[in-house]
Amino acid sequence: MVVYLVGAGPGDPDLVTLKAIKTLQKADVVVYDRLANEEILKYASGAGMIYVGKRAGAHSKKQEEINQILIEQGKKYDSVVRLKGGDPFVFGRGGEEILALQEEGIPVEIIPGVTSAIGVPTTVGLPVTHRGVATSFTVVTGHEDPTKSEKQVQWNYNADTIVILMGVGHLEENIKEIMKYKDPQTPVCVIEKGTTPDERIITGTLENITQKDINPPALVIIGPVVDVFKDIQNKKP
Amino acid sequence: MVVYLVGAGPGDPDLVTLKAIKTLQKADVVVYDRLANEEILKYASGAGMIYVGKRAGAHSKKQEEINQILIEQGKKYDSVVRLKGGDPFVFGRGGEEILALQEEGIPVEIIPGVTSAIGVPTTVGLPVTHRGVATSFTVVTGHEDPTKSEKQVQWNYNADTIVILMGVGHLEENIKEIMKYKDPQTPVCVIEKGTTPDERIITGTLENITQKDINPPALVIIGPVVDVFKDIQNKKP
Ligand SMILES: C[S@@+](CC[C@H](N)C(=O)[O-])C[C@H]1O[C@@H](n2cnc3c(N)ncnc32)[C@H](O)[C@@H]1O
Ligand SMILES: C[S@@+](CC[C@H](N)C(=O)[O-])C[C@H]1O[C@@H](n2cnc3c(N)ncnc32)[C@H](O)[C@@H]1O
Repeated sequence: MVVYLVGAGPGDPDLVTLKAIKTLQKADVVVYDRLANEEILKYASGAGMIYVGKRAGAHSKKQEEINQILIEQGKKYDSVVRLKGGDPFVFGRGGEEILALQEEGIPVEIIPGVTSAIGVPTTVGLPVTHRGVATSFTVVTGHEDPTKSEKQVQWNYNADTIVILMGVGHLEENIKEIMKYKDPQTPVCVIEKGTTPDERIITGTLENITQKDINPPALVIIGPVVDVFKDIQNKKP
Repeated sequence: MVVYLVGAGPGDPDLVTLKAIKTLQKADVVVYDRLANEEILKYASGAGMIYVGKRAGAHSKKQEEINQILIEQGKKYDSVVRLKGGDPFVFGRGGEEILALQEEGIPVEIIPGVTSAIGVPTTVGLPVTHRGVATSFTVVTGHEDPTKSEKQVQWNYNADTIVILMGVGHLEENIKEIMKYKDPQTPVCVIEKGTTPDERIITGTLENITQKDINPPALVIIGPVVDVFKDIQNKKP
């Protein structure tokens, strides 16, 4: 009994690692969330499949329930794959699942994935770091309720690039906060459904980005590297 | 003529993506840096190999020279792979290479990789984000000369987790700067040669980490997620 916490990558089924493929191939059962692309489930063709993500119109399972399912499966089978989009530790709640499994004596192994936070901008030619432009980047969740009294997210990040995940729902409130610390003219790029056939790229500034039509799942990338991206786009041969 | 800028992943040859493998398989020539593991070059068994990284005791080629080599090869061959450790845009100077190639009319495609910045901590069970502990992380280079007058790196990053790449050379000066903003007792984890057989993990605090024996290449991870890592380690079944 081992539970493998496996990163599925950002969407393009070819952006999965060889290690993830090999682990899926020997899985007895796969427990998976909503993925940008379910094609990679084919590598586990012999395995049982348990879906624990959101269904249209329904709530997703609570983390507690998911932990219970993983524990049950871990006790029953030699090889359980817990498949998560991107990397399991980038806002993936992987740490909580490990601790819950270990509590029950079930060993966990972790296989990283290409996180959407980096893999999506990289694929479109948006460098999160660039010599002379950005020597640091911060990855942050936009999901925190901005009216919560004890906020953990403060938005005064002073890295050169900011990448927001789960940023669509609270975009307006969060951008307002960021404008307290950054020039309203700072360029912004939003990438929806990156590395999939439905990918959409929207650019703007802190001041005008919320006026555009933006749909999840999307990344919001803020900073002067967005100008490098535009430069690369404009100079395409 | 296309130059593919390809991320090789953090070291473990199985942490390469399927897309990188497919691209290597059709390469005419591969231009590569020092990689944590050269085993993945085997996928390009038919291709020419050009090494442009550091040799022991010698300087690495200048970026200008590398750009020239890429341009030459790009003009000569259908399919050139420019292979880089981790992800090509995380302190990989990928953006500069793209702009130089496009300037000469050579199209570039980019294939992201598992960056060491995330893939290495994930593999050892160190979550860069964790519910209630870290809702943000900053990735930054430690390579900037700390005596430079116009510093771009300021070290007053207020994300919950800080991940330093190229952090060994200037570790002492950089940690001193960070201690201006963070408690000296903040836990620190250093991972040397992550995901390879020579991996070493060293833990400490901001105050004492520089007294330990640390060798490059290594990641320096700072913040309360290091305590989550220790918890996961201690509770291993
Ligand atoms: C719960 S987080 C999980 C992230 C995942 N662990 C990772 O490393 O990519 C989900 C968020 O990731 C981002 N995301 C995931 N896949 C994406 C894609 N293909 N394009 C754009 N954003 C994506 C969106 O911001 C989405 O709200
Ligand atoms: C020039 S940067 C390139 C990073 C690469 N583009 C990436 O995404 O991982 C090189 C630095 O990456 C880090 N690094 C790369 N591979 C590593 C590994 N296997 N273990 C620990 N650190 C690593 C070290 O901090 C090293 O100094």
